[in-house]
Amino acid sequence: MRIVVLAGGIGGARFLRGLKAAAPDADITVIGNTGDDIHLFGLKVCPDLDTVMYTLGGGINEEQGWGRTDETFQVKDELKAYGVGPDWFGLGDRDFATHIVRTQMLGAGYPLSAVTEALCERWQPGVRLLPMTDDRVETHVAVDLDGERRAVHFQEYWVRLRASVDALAVVPVGAEQSKPAPGVLEALAEADVVLFPPSNPVVSIGTILAVPGIREAIAEAGVPVVGLSPIVGGAPVRGMADKMLSAIGVETTAAAVAEHYGSGLLDGWLVDSADTGAVGEVEAAGIRCRAVPLMMTDLDATAAMAREALALAEEVRA
Amino acid sequence: MRIVVLAGGIGGARFLRGLKAAAPDADITVIGNTGDDIHLFGLKVCPDLDTVMYTLGGGINEEQGWGRTDETFQVKDELKAYGVGPDWFGLGDRDFATHIVRTQMLGAGYPLSAVTEALCERWQPGVRLLPMTDDRVETHVAVDLDGERRAVHFQEYWVRLRASVDALAVVPVGAEQSKPAPGVLEALAEADVVLFPPSNPVVSIGTILAVPGIREAIAEAGVPVVGLSPIVGGAPVRGMADKMLSAIGVETTAAAVAEHYGSGLLDGWLVDSADTGAVGEVEAAGIRCRAVPLMMTDLDATAAMAREALALAEEVRA
Repeated sequence: MRIVVLAGGIGGARFLRGLKAAAPDADITVIGNTGDDIHLFGLKVCPDLDTVMYTLGGGINEEQGWGRTDETFQVKDELKAYGVGPDWFGLGDRDFATHIVRTQMLGAGYPLSAVTEALCERWQPGVRLLPMTDDRVETHVAVDLDGERRAVHFQEYWVRLRASVDALAVVPVGAEQSKPAPGVLEALAEADVVLFPPSNPVVSIGTILAVPGIREAIAEAGVPVVGLSPIVGGAPVRGMADKMLSAIGVETTAAAVAEHYGSGLLDGWLVDSADTGAVGEVEAAGIRCRAVPLMMTDLDATAAMAREALALAEEVRA
Repeated sequence: MRIVVLAGGIGGARFLRGLKAAAPDADITVIGNTGDDIHLFGLKVCPDLDTVMYTLGGGINEEQGWGRTDETFQVKDELKAYGVGPDWFGLGDRDFATHIVRTQMLGAGYPLSAVTEALCERWQPGVRLLPMTDDRVETHVAVDLDGERRAVHFQEYWVRLRASVDALAVVPVGAEQSKPAPGVLEALAEADVVLFPPSNPVVSIGTILAVPGIREAIAEAGVPVVGLSPIVGGAPVRGMADKMLSAIGVETTAAAVAEHYGSGLLDGWLVDSADTGAVGEVEAAGIRCRAVPLMMTDLDATAAMAREALALAEEVRA
């Protein structure tokens, strides 16, 4: 079975770990969000790709969900001693090595997709990890700071401001001019199932869908497309997805997110058992829906979620 | 008193520490060798400038004479895990931060001289540290490897091969097209004394002198030019200067090095007490010479050497 998964960072990475356990023989291609990418200290940092790679490759800091395990911060401390910022993005020494290798390869002319493949040679994530695009796309968030409207990089909004101010708009800068990375459209054309993990529907999945050609390829693939709600009981399971949903005028409910994707894209939707009441509304919108436990508390629980998603896909297909 | 010092790495840096102690009120400008510079992992590394900066700024690893104190090697270990080389150049985590800042500033368009000034803002070396040039100059060494003549980067010869094969030629690639960095010719024109520390006469001082205009500016400054022999008792005090001297056909003796610089450039020359017999030969070549202890065993001994050099300069002037 060929499964294509659109993934952001932590939520996508953890779901993928469950999916690998649930479908060990499946051929899994991950289309990773690169809208969170940022240049720091002259280095290209790809937080979402790295979170998937480290999580599936056994190098992730399990507690925080991002960054490397057994991390140290000598480089960061030294950069601070030089007065070179920003200091709000916590890059560890081990993590720096990844960004140094990536930046060197990009500088030598390799596209991000080739660089990602090279990095995965070491990590052996057990999936094919593709960036959504080799082109530069950067998610910017419009905010009101001290009475002035400003656009800040997503990471500045998310990490430095901790989403403490309202997002007035979310713009994947460069997306319109971007092209899907090599392999993305081919993987979608050959897929048996497409899954949307419980990733942020705006700045993770939404950004991937903003790359011209990807949404169309999913719709035209003619295979079941099943998503898992990142909203449980009217709140994001983790992160600050509510701020992002407000920015695009979508309610923070499991049903509203399904309807935002729409029946033209989504065939099936899993909501948490706590949201059983939403099943009727989602089905009325033309999307098959089931309520099951959606908390990724451990690998077993996450694998069970992946099995439910695949089961719903089979139900859709039949 | 305005003193200009041409400096390589360890020898130059340690001598400068003694000079600062010997002449605390002097205005010292250091023209640093950049022929040892190398691009590693996409980062610009300037070993000699950094050795001077770290040594005078209190950040040097005293035992090895280069690199940072209390160093760790997480980034290096990770790069090795990625299979990215070279692994023979020992960059520590703290040191990496310097190269990251430098590379980012160079990428933003600042010349090396401005970058060096910015890095020194933190280190406060107590001297004005100038790279010999803002242009790229790279010392290459011609060697015979497995019967084949090859040119290798100086660092590859020095660090990887540990000068274990003969150097057939030493070429400062790019030197002919280079220009002295801003401030270099001005400092020489305003100098009261010019000193050559016991640095490598070929790949340190020699490379600086290969930048068109610097040798002429020293000769035309009309002030005493005094050097200290890096050769004691027919062998280099440290490093492998003998290999470099052989490559340019100069004997490894204190007198031969003085004659290599020549009386057109050098007015005074200090040899070690062990080489008292060389004084006559050097003076016969038109260079005033004194035999004094030249081992930089501690700060006092080094300061005494600096005082002897300044005394010889005054003798030349009078």
